[in-house]
Amino acid sequence: MPEVFTLPALANFFAAGGSPVAVADAALARIAAWDDPALFLARVPPSTVRARAATLAAEGPQGRALFSVPFVLKDNIDAAGVPTTAACPDYAYTPAEDAPVVARLLAAGAVLLGKVNLDQFATGLNGTRSPHGAPRNPVLPDCVPGGSSSGSATAVAAGIAAFSLGTDTAGSGRVPAMLNNIVGLKPSLGLVPTQGVVPACRSLDVVSVFALTVADAGAVLEVMAGPASADRYSRAAPVGWRAVPAPQPAWQLAAPLPEQLVFDSPDDAALYDAALARAEALGGTVTRVDIAPFLAIARRLYDGAWVAERTAALRDLLTTKPEAIHPVTRGILEAGLDKRTIDAWDDFHAAAEARRLARALFARTDILLLPTAPGAPTLADLAAEPVAANSRLGTYTNFVNICDLSALAVPSGFRANGRPAGVTLVGPAFAEARLAGLGAALHAVAGVTLGATGAATPPPPVPPPLAPGELPLLAIG
Amino acid sequence: MPEVFTLPALANFFAAGGSPVAVADAALARIAAWDDPALFLARVPPSTVRARAATLAAEGPQGRALFSVPFVLKDNIDAAGVPTTAACPDYAYTPAEDAPVVARLLAAGAVLLGKVNLDQFATGLNGTRSPHGAPRNPVLPDCVPGGSSSGSATAVAAGIAAFSLGTDTAGSGRVPAMLNNIVGLKPSLGLVPTQGVVPACRSLDVVSVFALTVADAGAVLEVMAGPASADRYSRAAPVGWRAVPAPQPAWQLAAPLPEQLVFDSPDDAALYDAALARAEALGGTVTRVDIAPFLAIARRLYDGAWVAERTAALRDLLTTKPEAIHPVTRGILEAGLDKRTIDAWDDFHAAAEARRLARALFARTDILLLPTAPGAPTLADLAAEPVAANSRLGTYTNFVNICDLSALAVPSGFRANGRPAGVTLVGPAFAEARLAGLGAALHAVAGVTLGATGAATPPPPVPPPLAPGELPLLAIG
Repeated sequence: MPEVFTLPALANFFAAGGSPVAVADAALARIAAWDDPALFLARVPPSTVRARAATLAAEGPQGRALFSVPFVLKDNIDAAGVPTTAACPDYAYTPAEDAPVVARLLAAGAVLLGKVNLDQFATGLNGTRSPHGAPRNPVLPDCVPGGSSSGSATAVAAGIAAFSLGTDTAGSGRVPAMLNNIVGLKPSLGLVPTQGVVPACRSLDVVSVFALTVADAGAVLEVMAGPASADRYSRAAPVGWRAVPAPQPAWQLAAPLPEQLVFDSPDDAALYDAALARAEALGGTVTRVDIAPFLAIARRLYDGAWVAERTAALRDLLTTKPEAIHPVTRGILEAGLDKRTIDAWDDFHAAAEARRLARALFARTDILLLPTAPGAPTLADLAAEPVAANSRLGTYTNFVNICDLSALAVPSGFRANGRPAGVTLVGPAFAEARLAGLGAALHAVAGVTLGATGAATPPPPVPPPLAPGELPLLAIG
Repeated sequence: MPEVFTLPALANFFAAGGSPVAVADAALARIAAWDDPALFLARVPPSTVRARAATLAAEGPQGRALFSVPFVLKDNIDAAGVPTTAACPDYAYTPAEDAPVVARLLAAGAVLLGKVNLDQFATGLNGTRSPHGAPRNPVLPDCVPGGSSSGSATAVAAGIAAFSLGTDTAGSGRVPAMLNNIVGLKPSLGLVPTQGVVPACRSLDVVSVFALTVADAGAVLEVMAGPASADRYSRAAPVGWRAVPAPQPAWQLAAPLPEQLVFDSPDDAALYDAALARAEALGGTVTRVDIAPFLAIARRLYDGAWVAERTAALRDLLTTKPEAIHPVTRGILEAGLDKRTIDAWDDFHAAAEARRLARALFARTDILLLPTAPGAPTLADLAAEPVAANSRLGTYTNFVNICDLSALAVPSGFRANGRPAGVTLVGPAFAEARLAGLGAALHAVAGVTLGATGAATPPPPVPPPLAPGELPLLAIG
């Protein structure tokens, strides 16, 4: 039995004759041992998990990419027959069908363990905005787990699930990765169907992946990607798109001007500088760039048109039963009720300008390397300032979806007091393979173990051979 | 001297030793002979036109695609040193620079004659919403000229300009083409820079081309196309994009369900049926499709979020000097003041769904063949019902920009009472070459002459040879 549920470890175990039922039993035992009442909002019954594993064992792998791999779902993503609540009991409904992305994972052999906690309606970056409490952070219990995909991140860091799905509108797939010392992959807009996902900002939402390694996150994303015919926000990826690490001999990297960087502590600043230095040691050339336009568009996310998009998605509940909504979340949503459309257009035209500037940046830059967040706050920090401390967590993540970019969060080390830190690699849409290439290399040299498992970070995978005619770099229009 | 200013006729004239100055003089004489005080809002002084032609004569063609070709600009597009008014004298400003699209035309050798009338702020489809009056329709003076690109269309139909630029947000580049018996090409969103263009709905606006023939419109568009670095709404076209007719052996065509078609008269219906029959005779297979979702999204254009986009662009003038705005236009803009953003999101999500349905349609269809408008109204019709008669003109055009489609309007014949009719070919984004292929063929067999010139419609051009590896059909993602 692999001590750590990475995809290669599980595949090796099965190749050597290991049983899917044994892995399922181990996952169920880890859930019991972890014993966090704030983690699962709905369990798949253990008997069902074992039965699924037994069926898979009888069938054999059949080439399936996620054969018998245990995973969990953020509870704003539909799984047939299991209630979807978005951490709001009054919102609950039981879908008859899996979300297309879930159906793809199951078809690839993955084993669902359950639905996990989140900041209610995926509104928040800290993990405490849930009536069920905050999932316990496996790395440092005083720290928030991060959100909104709180349970998705802690379940992977605790070694229960090999991977999990989150969602990401403003950083919900990246900030919890940092806070749990794991990998968070925010795919390009439209790459993964959002059909069957409770909307936050429907035009900006993506389904994201948490995993212990960059290679695992990419492998899961390759299973998830591709348009769903009924999904209005699906987009076709360019021909040749991949999510697993792409070979690249040298990197043109960008970093913010030093005066634009904010950190919670000198330790956090030093950890970011160290990550930049490691990127240079890996063959990167770092150019400082002005990220003020991106910071500016980020401020519009919660002040402008997009908060009204959240409100629009929940207007019925907000009007008929406001007390059903977490008070912090309700305050945010109510601010969207009275926004005027003529002002929204200022936001949209500003967003178009920010996207233009991002295109210009990535015409000369492979990757923008940012801190994932200024630092890791504690539960007490969030209790003291529920909105301000949350906003600070989104400093480096909020602009990414509005600017139509892809992003990958990887661990970068720990402060002296044990709090985790991370960097996020940002690229243009559909540059997942490029991000994975540097991300895996950076992760391997960050001097960290995987999540809270204590297992060593593997060396970066050898990139797959190029297909005939394939270029070593994914060319982006 | 060519009787009719088509690009091949002018090129032949110059190749045979004809003088650019002679063409400029002829164009100036035609302006004088046409004698419409409502056509030009600003003339380029005749001495300047002649001096420009003399310079071009001295330089020779130098391979320039629009060498010494006379054109006019809708007065919502910047030309350096000439006031831009959008048909609102109080809005006037004098730009220091040409709009990028104008700079490209001038660099290709075109000769600007002046800025022409429009429905004020490009809001309208009929051509009467201008404080300067309506340009005279050269085909039938009782008919409206169409709008909002009224002068752009009449100047071409009258034989003054070889081509003109209009703009198109909801049909302003297509409806006037029908009403003037000429060709109107609405390019894909973002293909032509809109920098230096007075915004109507900035997110939906395109610069359009009017010409006497499909081949000429495509040739002009090829000069205009391509991102401008400072233009936030520019998009790169796919590799291999063309605007001139593409060869195609057979066409999968779609037409609305018969009960979804509205016409002003049985004559208009018969002219549309005849155009469909001609398309079938040219090798097309026509399938009837339900266009209800597209008609539904069109209704949101003036009832929902996008009217507020128009209002947002003019909020200062509307607030400080409302009397400066045409009363009909002012009424439309005022409706945008109080729209709420939470309702706008319903429109945007509906638009995303309409785009999804359009993608599904064009996955199995090459071209959607529609009437350009239900019929050609008279000036009296518009005076009687300034809003309702205008809205009716947009029946088949309003949805196209919201759905991210390309379109080409070509003449299809005349009613017994002399009123012009037309069809519009609609395709996915960047399918201009596909539309031009069928459009030129349909135009050639429509039994019409060019504009009001009386000249015969040329046979469709022989498609250019394919580049190595180029496919006969533009493949759309």
